[in-house]
Amino acid sequence: MSDHVYKTIEITGSSKTSIEEAVRTAISRAQESVHNLRWFEVNNIRGHLEDGEIGHWQATIKLGITLDPPQ
Amino acid sequence: MSDHVYKTIEITGSSKTSIEEAVRTAISRAQESVHNLRWFEVNNIRGHLEDGEIGHWQATIKLGITLDPPQ
Amino acid sequence: MSDHVYKTIEITGSSKTSIEEAVRTAISRAQESVHNLRWFEVNNIRGHLEDGEIGHWQATIKLGITLDPPQ
Amino acid sequence: MSDHVYKTIEITGSSKTSIEEAVRTAISRAQESVHNLRWFEVNNIRGHLEDGEIGHWQATIKLGITLDPPQ
Amino acid sequence: MSDHVYKTIEITGSSKTSIEEAVRTAISRAQESVHNLRWFEVNNIRGHLEDGEIGHWQATIKLGITLDPPQ
Amino acid sequence: MSDHVYKTIEITGSSKTSIEEAVRTAISRAQESVHNLRWFEVNNIRGHLEDGEIGHWQATIKLGITLDPPQ
Amino acid sequence: MSDHVYKTIEITGSSKTSIEEAVRTAISRAQESVHNLRWFEVNNIRGHLEDGEIGHWQATIKLGITLDPPQ
Amino acid sequence: MSDHVYKTIEITGSSKTSIEEAVRTAISRAQESVHNLRWFEVNNIRGHLEDGEIGHWQATIKLGITLDPPQ
Amino acid sequence: MSDHVYKTIEITGSSKTSIEEAVRTAISRAQESVHNLRWFEVNNIRGHLEDGEIGHWQATIKLGITLDPPQ
Amino acid sequence: MSDHVYKTIEITGSSKTSIEEAVRTAISRAQESVHNLRWFEVNNIRGHLEDGEIGHWQATIKLGITLDPPQ
Amino acid sequence: MSDHVYKTIEITGSSKTSIEEAVRTAISRAQESVHNLRWFEVNNIRGHLEDGEIGHWQATIKLGITLDPPQ
Amino acid sequence: MSDHVYKTIEITGSSKTSIEEAVRTAISRAQESVHNLRWFEVNNIRGHLEDGEIGHWQATIKLGITLDPPQ
Repeated sequence: MSDHVYKTIEITGSSKTSIEEAVRTAISRAQESVHNLRWFEVNNIRGHLEDGEIGHWQATIKLGITLDPPQ
Repeated sequence: MSDHVYKTIEITGSSKTSIEEAVRTAISRAQESVHNLRWFEVNNIRGHLEDGEIGHWQATIKLGITLDPPQ
Repeated sequence: MSDHVYKTIEITGSSKTSIEEAVRTAISRAQESVHNLRWFEVNNIRGHLEDGEIGHWQATIKLGITLDPPQ
Repeated sequence: MSDHVYKTIEITGSSKTSIEEAVRTAISRAQESVHNLRWFEVNNIRGHLEDGEIGHWQATIKLGITLDPPQ
Repeated sequence: MSDHVYKTIEITGSSKTSIEEAVRTAISRAQESVHNLRWFEVNNIRGHLEDGEIGHWQATIKLGITLDPPQ
Repeated sequence: MSDHVYKTIEITGSSKTSIEEAVRTAISRAQESVHNLRWFEVNNIRGHLEDGEIGHWQATIKLGITLDPPQ
Repeated sequence: MSDHVYKTIEITGSSKTSIEEAVRTAISRAQESVHNLRWFEVNNIRGHLEDGEIGHWQATIKLGITLDPPQ
Repeated sequence: MSDHVYKTIEITGSSKTSIEEAVRTAISRAQESVHNLRWFEVNNIRGHLEDGEIGHWQATIKLGITLDPPQ
Repeated sequence: MSDHVYKTIEITGSSKTSIEEAVRTAISRAQESVHNLRWFEVNNIRGHLEDGEIGHWQATIKLGITLDPPQ
Repeated sequence: MSDHVYKTIEITGSSKTSIEEAVRTAISRAQESVHNLRWFEVNNIRGHLEDGEIGHWQATIKLGITLDPPQ
Repeated sequence: MSDHVYKTIEITGSSKTSIEEAVRTAISRAQESVHNLRWFEVNNIRGHLEDGEIGHWQATIKLGITLDPPQ
Repeated sequence: MSDHVYKTIEITGSSKTSIEEAVRTAISRAQESVHNLRWFEVNNIRGHLEDGEIGHWQATIKLGITLDPPQ
């Protein structure tokens, strides 16, 4: 959101409890392989039903990442 | 999401407490009349205000239902 | 629009005279088989041409229906 | 597409071979329970991958159905 | 949602804890300057990341306001 | 639509009789508090049902307003 | 809507009285230069305000035209 | 897709057998009256049902046409 | 934007230097064959890369044209 | 974009020379009456043609404004 | 579509024969560099014309990929 | 745009001077780490305001990249 260059990736996380936890799962997994996460936007909220109950919430986010300046 | 045929219906539930509860209310009511609910997608989140407070959260979902094979 | 659960169906009505009449035709037919119609939203307005004149207006609406509580 | 009243339902079919076959599967299943199917519109084309091969094509269609006049 | 005239404004609130709290923050601030808030629709859910954690949730809502009849 | 600066507001009017009257109700109320209305665009047409009849038509419009030059 | 090939053009008509008349104005003008008009879809409804009154309604339609078979 | 000026037209073709054939029918008819067709984009896939079978597939495409330089 | 009937065409122009020049190229070519151009709307901005540099900007516009009254 | 509450307004500016100047005109006029402008998003780029030349560029922006904390 | 975290990439394949083959080309190339492909969604169908014939079909898909758990 | 397979990435660049420069910044940074850039599409134009002036223009582009054939 400043004068950096950043790229956007799309990632989906899931949670048995809430939409917020599904978003956190996606972000948590993303930062194991990319650095400089800056912002996210929730683009899709879905879920799976098992025996009439919500088995998982799924949140798909766009994730903005500042690009490290190259050496 | 497999090789079944399924149909999609649109249903809206409400809750005084959270978006997740409004989704559960919709699903809970739907399964009184249809079987084989498989997935949902949250398409709209709204709410009503009463005296400046949120009276109800409303979540509109698309609900995927596997069609029973006919006899 | 309150704390009920409701479902949404999509229905198209037609009229030789106006958009409003095409909407009324759709609603009138719907209430022969479903109860508790609450609101509608006009999603599409089309028409057919016959000899360069408008033969029919067609209005496609989403129709919100309160679900009766089950016994 | 004429002066009838019709409703629209959303249904998803699948096929191992092609998009067209996935559409036919959806239509074929729908007409076991509803009559007077008139037209369809393909709204979504998806598929599942198994071992890097396309396991199923899935086509989601809106299906227009003329409502029988009530007696 | 009745026979009143109302206007719609767009407002964004934030919260460190949840989407629902971010919506409440927006509504709470809005009613300090406008009256007769009636409904809201959540149009966008975003957030900021600080050191790989969610620093703030942000919810952008459209807020429907009944216009007072003029004197 | 010329070289002026203008702003856009969103407003909803209602009418028991027609879409056009619902638009006029919105415009009529708006000009009690703002000047220099120039154009509108109809963004949403809805309605409420009472006992299976259309109780109110509702039209939501974007309304373009030329800004007075400041002194 | 049958097995013909047809093309679509976009045209805007206006009227001082109603949306329906604005659509008819567009169709009426179109058929002076093209034949075989089959259907239309209303894509945009706008209007101009003059002294706080609606000066013109404008309706933009897509117009489907059957192509004559070439000789 | 190069440094030419081109225009886009919308055209619909039909076929009893496949989506690809419906696209080819549209293109084939278009080039009887326009030259320099360059690319197409499939914007809509529909079909008609006759006795529960697909009577025609219909594909609506946008068709990009390089404009001949004027003399 | 007045009480005329007008049609809309879609046209794409290109430029090596700027978005504005790409729009001007499209308009300049259009008026060699049509008269009474009134307004445009930029619907798409693209470009081609050659050896990592922008070879051409491409702007796709909708172009509004007043229809001459027929004799 | 931080933990403030902000509102969004829509405003259109124009310029004889460029898209960027049309945006600046809108922002410049807005800050005569509102404070704490933070960001903008360009939602629409249009223009008017006079004698086949671009008379004005028009840029419609959404403008984010931090709300002053009330006393 | 389960409780995994997955990311989505966008990829375009082409084929001289059919839409399905263009999708397969995209998937086939993707799995040379990424593992655990799970599903796809067809987002765009285009093609190039050479001498009035379809030279290539192009299908752009979103491709869902389960992320391997990190060590 | 030919018979290659290509992927699409989303990247945002910024500039103090113009939209075109913001696009160039994004492309310039991208080609430090990926090869075979072919085309771009501008999907979003935003900016930040500092003391009522435009501090940065931001352009978000989709960038099409030909995939090298694997060895």
